[in-house]
Amino acid sequence: MLTVSPPYSATAIAIVPLSTRTLSFPPFNCRPRRSSSLRLSASSSSSPMIEKETMEAERPHTFLREADENSFHSSNSVRLRFERMIREAQDTVCSAIQALDGAANFKEHVWSRPGGGGGISRVLQDGAVWEKAGVNVSVVYGVMPPEAYRAAKPSDNGDVKPGPVPFFAAGISSVLHPKNPFAPTLHFNYRYFETDSPKDAPGSPRQWWFGGGTDLTPAYIFEEDVKHFHSVQKSACDKFNSDFYPKFKKWCDDYFYIKHRGERRGLGGIFFDDLNTYDQEMLLSFATECANSVIPAYIPIMERRKDMPFTESHKSWQQLRRGRYVEFNLVYDRGTTFGLKTGGRIESILVSLPLTARWEYDHQPEEGSEEWKLLDACINPKEWI
Amino acid sequence: MLTVSPPYSATAIAIVPLSTRTLSFPPFNCRPRRSSSLRLSASSSSSPMIEKETMEAERPHTFLREADENSFHSSNSVRLRFERMIREAQDTVCSAIQALDGAANFKEHVWSRPGGGGGISRVLQDGAVWEKAGVNVSVVYGVMPPEAYRAAKPSDNGDVKPGPVPFFAAGISSVLHPKNPFAPTLHFNYRYFETDSPKDAPGSPRQWWFGGGTDLTPAYIFEEDVKHFHSVQKSACDKFNSDFYPKFKKWCDDYFYIKHRGERRGLGGIFFDDLNTYDQEMLLSFATECANSVIPAYIPIMERRKDMPFTESHKSWQQLRRGRYVEFNLVYDRGTTFGLKTGGRIESILVSLPLTARWEYDHQPEEGSEEWKLLDACINPKEWI
Repeated sequence: MLTVSPPYSATAIAIVPLSTRTLSFPPFNCRPRRSSSLRLSASSSSSPMIEKETMEAERPHTFLREADENSFHSSNSVRLRFERMIREAQDTVCSAIQALDGAANFKEHVWSRPGGGGGISRVLQDGAVWEKAGVNVSVVYGVMPPEAYRAAKPSDNGDVKPGPVPFFAAGISSVLHPKNPFAPTLHFNYRYFETDSPKDAPGSPRQWWFGGGTDLTPAYIFEEDVKHFHSVQKSACDKFNSDFYPKFKKWCDDYFYIKHRGERRGLGGIFFDDLNTYDQEMLLSFATECANSVIPAYIPIMERRKDMPFTESHKSWQQLRRGRYVEFNLVYDRGTTFGLKTGGRIESILVSLPLTARWEYDHQPEEGSEEWKLLDACINPKEWI
Repeated sequence: MLTVSPPYSATAIAIVPLSTRTLSFPPFNCRPRRSSSLRLSASSSSSPMIEKETMEAERPHTFLREADENSFHSSNSVRLRFERMIREAQDTVCSAIQALDGAANFKEHVWSRPGGGGGISRVLQDGAVWEKAGVNVSVVYGVMPPEAYRAAKPSDNGDVKPGPVPFFAAGISSVLHPKNPFAPTLHFNYRYFETDSPKDAPGSPRQWWFGGGTDLTPAYIFEEDVKHFHSVQKSACDKFNSDFYPKFKKWCDDYFYIKHRGERRGLGGIFFDDLNTYDQEMLLSFATECANSVIPAYIPIMERRKDMPFTESHKSWQQLRRGRYVEFNLVYDRGTTFGLKTGGRIESILVSLPLTARWEYDHQPEEGSEEWKLLDACINPKEWI
């Protein structure tokens, strides 16, 4: 069982797919061993909070526990349908990426946890079009402390009795870093949470919520690309609620904020979290629509940009922006920082980092240049449509 | 005045030299402006805790406040002598680096703060031998909350009255990243702190302490290099106390620990903090000896390695280890994380990051290879002498 300690929301758990790898079965067998006499500092001796995963030779038809899968009540559950949806989305996205890349294939690792749950990690590295593309799904059964539960569900303040709260989480998470500096990085992540009744309050209601988003991080602005991307996001939102796009667009600008730079990591998209004040079926459809919008939002841009000629200076600016991506993910992203602290599988957590990045001292783009325009849009988020 | 909020010790303040730059006088004049209507998330609207610095055209003979410099009591003070020492060390190190590099020169920025203090930042970028070399000195006058003061001085538990504690800090901080993958990165940092009497307890004693260290981060192990480096550190320590080297060597291994990887960022050296249980004059001499040992410890290694032929695969491994350096600095280093949180000057704080870095998914060096040996030594720290 997994124990969650920090405020439990945002990109946590579901974007921490704890896969293992071909070479590490049993885990870490060809890694230098830690001597048992090694003394670490006090803070480093605390044990990881996440149960060790085991490798699977094949993809199971579901990662749900049997009880979840088979009971009459569960046969059409949101858990089951959400898992099916993210696995289909993973297949669709990976097929489209691999087809456009043409050179490299995704490597897949399937894993499970003894206590239930598991995941499928897929990474394509050093392709013709993408330098690193990770698309992961995971299903997690865990227990969260009541403080974390309350933090995640502010609307319930005070009426949840203390005691560990069993939860279920499932999600898809992906970061796609292209090679060409005119082709943008894409990130998306959709997740669903459910809590069981707290152990010491068996009658209290089951809670659920959705989270996620899709956002674009180019090094150079092509207005038609950004408009296209945001239009697809808006169309997906508008099918459900006309408030969604403006609200989730702003949420995205606020979330992907590199505070110490005073700038966003990219040009945004949509982001939402702890969403449960709408009809559950509607939100399931909405999350499905969002996941299905990834390819139509991204691939047309990639087709236009992947083979554009570029100079060393364009590449260097892309690398500087990749450095910002690293700064956001290591310093601010809740999923990443949570995963690092709780002992999740590092390679899966850090698959979001680019293959290569750069930090120049005191780099300032020339006023009015294309690089300056990108930076300006990261500092002052724009309405693109 | 500067306010310090987190546990105040280790690599804080003194390795956060808040220089400004040629292009930013007035600050940020050619950076895209933030729109005043931009609404940020709650956490991002808190104001930075560090007073804005101003550029100076010339290096002053001291950054101390006049009162510190001129009073009879202060004319031979440790503050004054420590500042003199770090400025001499900066000159010596920069001259030696620049002479060996031969191609690029250090760019210098001098800055001061209206309330007192200031610093000199020097960065050499894209040279023949070093891809990025930063050597900074700074003098800071600030106020720390009493909790932080107590955290920094555990020996005084309980007997310090609450109230803000004015402090003085001075330090030299440097990271030198070479180009050749067989040439190691070097980091060193020496700092001195003094607190005045707390404002609401004017009679209570003034406190002081020293901190710092020098450590080596190669991508490949050359035993003669590592032995030489540690021998020079040990010689510097042994001149003062035979306990110092074993104690500070272990402290270094414990501090530069990338917890989520289970490995150190490099092959260590010496590290100490909050040092005040020895004679103050002795510790001033010791810190001076350590700073003076940087060049004899490092330059002979660089002379041997800077022109060694290497392959793309060697370079790629160096880049992966640079990625680990980035992970340590952004996730764990107390000076960096403190600087990012308190609104220090980002370019100076992040000058420690390498020019380029790399993250490959699931990279595992072949057992017994040179890369594996380095990783093994980072996981299981060795006694080199």
